[in-house]
Formats: sequence, structure tokens, C-alpha cells
Amino acid sequence: MHVPTLIEKKRDGGELTAEEIAYLVSGFTHGEIPDYQMSAWAMAVFFRGMKPAETKHLTRAMVESGRVLDYPPGTPPKVDKHSTGGVGDKVSLVLAPLLACDKVWVPMICGRGLGITGGTLDKLESIPGFNVHLDERRALSQLESIGVFIIGQTEDICPADRKLYALRDVTGTIPSPPLIVASIMSKKLAESLDRLVLDVKFGSGAFMKTREEAKRLAASMTKVGKLMGVKVSYLLTPMDQPLGRAVGNALEVAECVEILQGGGPADVIDLVLDLAEQVSTAPRPQLARWLADGTAWRKFISLVYAQDGDASSLEKIAEVHPAPIIHPLLAQTAGSVRKMDAEAIGRAWLLLGGGRQTADGTIDFAVGFSGIKKIGERVKKGESLLLVHARNEQTLQSVLPLLEQATEIA
Amino acid sequence: MHVPTLIEKKRDGGELTAEEIAYLVSGFTHGEIPDYQMSAWAMAVFFRGMKPAETKHLTRAMVESGRVLDYPPGTPPKVDKHSTGGVGDKVSLVLAPLLACDKVWVPMICGRGLGITGGTLDKLESIPGFNVHLDERRALSQLESIGVFIIGQTEDICPADRKLYALRDVTGTIPSPPLIVASIMSKKLAESLDRLVLDVKFGSGAFMKTREEAKRLAASMTKVGKLMGVKVSYLLTPMDQPLGRAVGNALEVAECVEILQGGGPADVIDLVLDLAEQVSTAPRPQLARWLADGTAWRKFISLVYAQDGDASSLEKIAEVHPAPIIHPLLAQTAGSVRKMDAEAIGRAWLLLGGGRQTADGTIDFAVGFSGIKKIGERVKKGESLLLVHARNEQTLQSVLPLLEQATEIA
Repeated sequence: MHVPTLIEKKRDGGELTAEEIAYLVSGFTHGEIPDYQMSAWAMAVFFRGMKPAETKHLTRAMVESGRVLDYPPGTPPKVDKHSTGGVGDKVSLVLAPLLACDKVWVPMICGRGLGITGGTLDKLESIPGFNVHLDERRALSQLESIGVFIIGQTEDICPADRKLYALRDVTGTIPSPPLIVASIMSKKLAESLDRLVLDVKFGSGAFMKTREEAKRLAASMTKVGKLMGVKVSYLLTPMDQPLGRAVGNALEVAECVEILQGGGPADVIDLVLDLAEQVSTAPRPQLARWLADGTAWRKFISLVYAQDGDASSLEKIAEVHPAPIIHPLLAQTAGSVRKMDAEAIGRAWLLLGGGRQTADGTIDFAVGFSGIKKIGERVKKGESLLLVHARNEQTLQSVLPLLEQATEIA
Repeated sequence: MHVPTLIEKKRDGGELTAEEIAYLVSGFTHGEIPDYQMSAWAMAVFFRGMKPAETKHLTRAMVESGRVLDYPPGTPPKVDKHSTGGVGDKVSLVLAPLLACDKVWVPMICGRGLGITGGTLDKLESIPGFNVHLDERRALSQLESIGVFIIGQTEDICPADRKLYALRDVTGTIPSPPLIVASIMSKKLAESLDRLVLDVKFGSGAFMKTREEAKRLAASMTKVGKLMGVKVSYLLTPMDQPLGRAVGNALEVAECVEILQGGGPADVIDLVLDLAEQVSTAPRPQLARWLADGTAWRKFISLVYAQDGDASSLEKIAEVHPAPIIHPLLAQTAGSVRKMDAEAIGRAWLLLGGGRQTADGTIDFAVGFSGIKKIGERVKKGESLLLVHARNEQTLQSVLPLLEQATEIA
């Protein structure tokens, strides 16, 4: 096949065949098709889009560029969740052990945070010793013993996606729905799932700003998943305010511990149960019970322990990662919280050093926000709207104006 | 400046500033901006186009990526012609010496053929010894002595265009009007011209298939030229049948010799005069006289001699490059020629080995077609519609079906 001809076909609005897409992806992965042809092709896809069948072919080609998880026959159904990412989204840390209370396996492969979006791996790594780099054999044996693992991408999984994503990142070709769909779905489908639930977020703190965009993306991901034989469902969830009351790696682990011990903020609990219902065979009351009665908490301890984490640190994670400065943002007036902008809080967290601006940046586990008031809650004048956890006075001062703008009391 | 941001700006329909375009072109030329970003940007330009000001900035940045011709003060006006290319288009070989009969300088920098389009340099190189690689000093001294040179691109002229064109060629980004305009105009403007005439072709054998497309391209090139201070005019000329009666490198040189000696086909002569009128100060009757009375022919001999060519070979160029097989395509019926398709004849010429499929392919000077009947001419049954000049029986047989389809008698 002649690569310029394939680029031109897409450029002119044509539909690429499975063979053509497989040729592009495989050639690119093996370095036979140069970056400059792949980036031109990606830009053509940005403008022309892809038909569902093409998106499926692309997803499949990316899955087939690497290894897929392979389970012994007769093992339980494999289920997972994927979130398009938001501020304070710590759902996976609670959901994974909760699902594993049921008779399913949860082979969860996650990513790191980038920009204002936190990452499950980063949060887990704030637990001393926690190892997100299990090899496949160890990961599978962990499924046999406790039904769940949470690990990072391995080199073997979807190498095509890793290479293409890095190229898209520097060529203005990230925001293309079919490329996004294929990137997300290929990684999840490499887990050889039976059921998958998507948490597609919309709002200021999400990649998709409107519900309509989120719905289109969700429908496209669902379609591709189904075309590939996986039972996929989705929830569209708002991301205008942070999820829960904490934002920051260690601070969010602390909040998850609260939830797993039967407490914690209602919005996170509700979302966890909403998502769990979609892929679990257990009914919602049962799932809620496992959360409330410590079953999921014990599963989480097993998970941390199995992945070399210091489970004894979980209940004092804030002491493990203390922020030198804890500063309350005070309400200037009494009233009810009208705005607690997720994007601005996410940006403030980045400025505090909690997230990464680039894929290889380092992060500060301790910094972030806790005690975040939720929209609709009433506050007195002088009451704390949130607590800033900062490394030093300078970063604290740099975020205060942003936080003033992020909050509003009516 | 941040390259992905510039790509995104163009991708989203924004207008790039002079500084932004200069940054892209200069960075790309010096290897600081990688191919994969430039190809994604070029694809974004394909979809979004460019405003006239942007096209001007791009043209200027490409001109400024290299050297421009520099003349002593007080020298005659510099004039040139550019054709968008067609089948049998040998106009430059006649026009350049003709213009140089007038008190102007003709610093003609040309290209090679690619695909079905022939190239002036290839035709000239069929003249034994003809040297298209003069250095700038020698080229300028030749202008002083005879008022004309015809050479190829030097390494110093528009390196940005050379690099970008090579990239566009393999990334599906050739057919973008602003990129075409900038590519053509930058090379011509590096000649530091006073006047330029464009021969913009349309029809089956041309890059532009319709008169409207050709007109848009012509208007855009004219605008950019004017914005850069050059007097530019254009002609829109049909390319549905080959120009003249010969197609092929040596065969076209032979036809040019005929014309310069006062004979030759009327369509080429008319076009040469139409174009010459646009940039010459001499009136048309004078130009026609110079063609008819041998003045232009003597100038051509001086040109060939000045560039190391064997002028004595000109009148027997077909013997210098003999084709082993000369085969007439016979009219199957009497009537008048209704079709002599330029594209099909160009493709047949490629199959005979006369052109190049890729930029570094080798070519056969001898092969091609002569005695091509023009549309509207009457033929008898069994009369020759054209003579095929082939290297061997195999290539001859390969083109005959194509030629059958290319011709039609009504």
C-alpha cells in the first residue's frame, strides 16, 4: 500500500478499510511509516472524522499492536470502568475494591494525571511502597487471589497508542473524537473485558465542556466497544465543581479511606454506586452494604498489601505527606455556595505543584485542597470554603487570586 | 513561539501573522521544527486555506530562506514566464530566447518534469553538453552578454520551498492552493523580477481541471506577486490536447527548432506570442518578426553555446536520440479529430519511459510522440494520428490501448 494515497483518501473524505488502517498503524508502530506521514494523516482525520467502522478498525489495530491480557478459561467475568477525567475524581480507588467484593475480576490499567486532571496511579503512589508496575504474571495471580489489580500501562500494551498519542500531543491532533475514542478504548479492550462502564464527564473541569459533546463521545466509545464484542455502558456526569471535598493526591487517598470506612462525601459515594451498578452483578443495596460494612475497605487493604503498599499508612496518609502550610479560604459573606469552579481549582492545584504540566514532570503528593464546600451548601461569613495545602508561602500566594475567582457565594 | 499552538491556530481557522509564518518556515528550514509538525501544519492549511496576506508572508519567508538574484544597478528590466505545466508544453525554449531579442533580461530558473508534465530542464538536457547548473556569477555574466539563461534551482534558492515540497509530496498536501502559490511564486520572486507572466493551464492534461480553478489559482498568484511589488499578469490556456505536435524531450526540442526557424505548429507560436506580449516592451508584430526572421533562433544558438551545449546537434536532435521503434497510430475511420486527450498521452509518455514517476527517476530522451494531429483536423482512414517513438516492442504494446482511448474521430 502507498501511504500518501491512504492519507489522500482520508483527506478527501474517504473511508479507510480495516486492512488500510492496520497497515498504517502497524507500519507506524514498527517505524516503517515516518512520523510526518502519520501526523498529516491524523490532521486529515481531525478534519474528516471517521466512520464507526473505521474507529473500530483503528481501535483493533492499536490493541493488536501489542499484547492483550489473557485469562485462564472458566474465570469470572472481567469488568472495568474508564473516566474521561476530572478534578478530584478518585472514583477508581473506591470502585475497584468494591467491584472485587462481587464475583468479578477487575483488571484495572490506569494512567497518570496530566494538566488539571488527576491520575489514579499518582494517587496510589502517594501510599508508601505502592507498586503500579506489576508484570503480567503477577497481575494475573493477584486477580486469582483477590480479584483486582490497579497498574499502569506496560510497554507491551498498545504501543501504537503510546507512540501515536505522543505524536498527536505535539501536532495539534489531540481533540479528534475518533482518535480519542480509539486511544481510550484500545487500552481498555487490551484488558480483554466482558463489561465496561464509561464515566464521561462534562463541564468546566472536564475535557468536554458540554453535555452534548460528552454524549457524542460516549456514544462513539460505546459503539466501538460493542462492535468489538464488549458490553459497554456509560454515564454522563457533571464536572463543574470538584468531585468530593478533596483535590490532591494524598488528600484524595484520605478521602477514599473515609468512604471505604463508611463515611465520606455523598457525591462520590453516589457516583461510585451508579458506576458499580452498571458492571456488577450485585444489586445496588448489596454494593452500598459492602461500602458501609467494611467489606470494600478490607478488599482495598488487601489490594494495597498485594501491591507492596504500606497499608498501615492509609489512615494517616496526611501525616505521611504533610503540607507545611494549611490555609483556609474564608467566605467574605454569608450565603450559599454558588460556584466552586472545577477548572480553576484544578489549575490552582497545578500551580501548587500537585499535578504535571508535561508528561515527565514531578509532582507533590501533599499539596491540594480539602474541606471543599459543595455548591448549594450554606456558609457563614468567615467560614472556610476550603483549606489550601501548600508547600510554601510563595505557591500559596500564587493561587489565592485564582481561588477567589473560582468561588462565589450568593 | 510554541509550534503546536501555531498548528492549532491554523487548524481552527485562524490567520497566522508574518512573524508566526516566518518562525515556522525558518525553524523548519534549519531543522529546528521537525517534519511531523510541518506536515500536520500543511494538512491544516490544506483544509483551512490561507488569507492573501498569509500567502504573501509564506512566499516571502520562503524567498528569504535563501539567496535572491542580485543585479548591478541600471541593468535592463528582468522578465520571466511561469507555466503550471502541461503535456507538450515547450514554450520556455522558444519564449526565453525570443524575449531576449528585446532589451530585457530573462533570468529563467526552471524545474524538471514530474508525472505527466514535462520539464524545461529535461528537454534542454537532451541537447548534448547543455549545462543547467550555472553558478550565480556565471549566470549573471551570461545575462550581461546575451540577456538570457535557463538553469535549474540552485541549492541557495528557496531551500525552504525545496524541503517543504518534498515533505508535501509524501504527506498528501500538494493540492493546497496557497501552498502551491507560495511554492511557485517564491522561486520566481527569488529571480528579483520586474515583470512576470503566468501561463495557468486547465484541462485533462493540467493540474487544474477546470477554467474556474485555474482562474482562482492565477488570481491568487497574481495577488501575491503584486503584494510583493512585481508586475504579474496571467493567461488561462487550455490543456485538453497536447501543445504542438510533439511530446517527448528530444522530440520537443526538434519542434522548437522548427518554430525558431520560422515554421512549426500554430498553437505553440500563438501561445509564445501571447505570453511574450505580456512582459516584453516590443510589440507583437516585432516579436513575430524575430521568430520568423531567425533573430530568436540565433539567440537560442547563443544560449545553447553559452551553456556548453552542442549547438550543431540542434538540427539533428532526433538522430542524437533515436528511438528504435517508430510506430504510427492509424485512424480507423475517416473524419475529423474530436479527441486527442492530453492526460492519456502524458501517461503513455510516462509508460514509454520519457518522464519520471518519482523525483529521482531517470528518463529516456528519445521516446514520445510526433506528428500529433490537432483536434478539428481531418484525417483519412489509415492515416497516421501520431507516431509513437518507443524504446522497445514491450513499452510500445503497453501504450497502444491507452492511445486508442486517447483519440477519437468524429
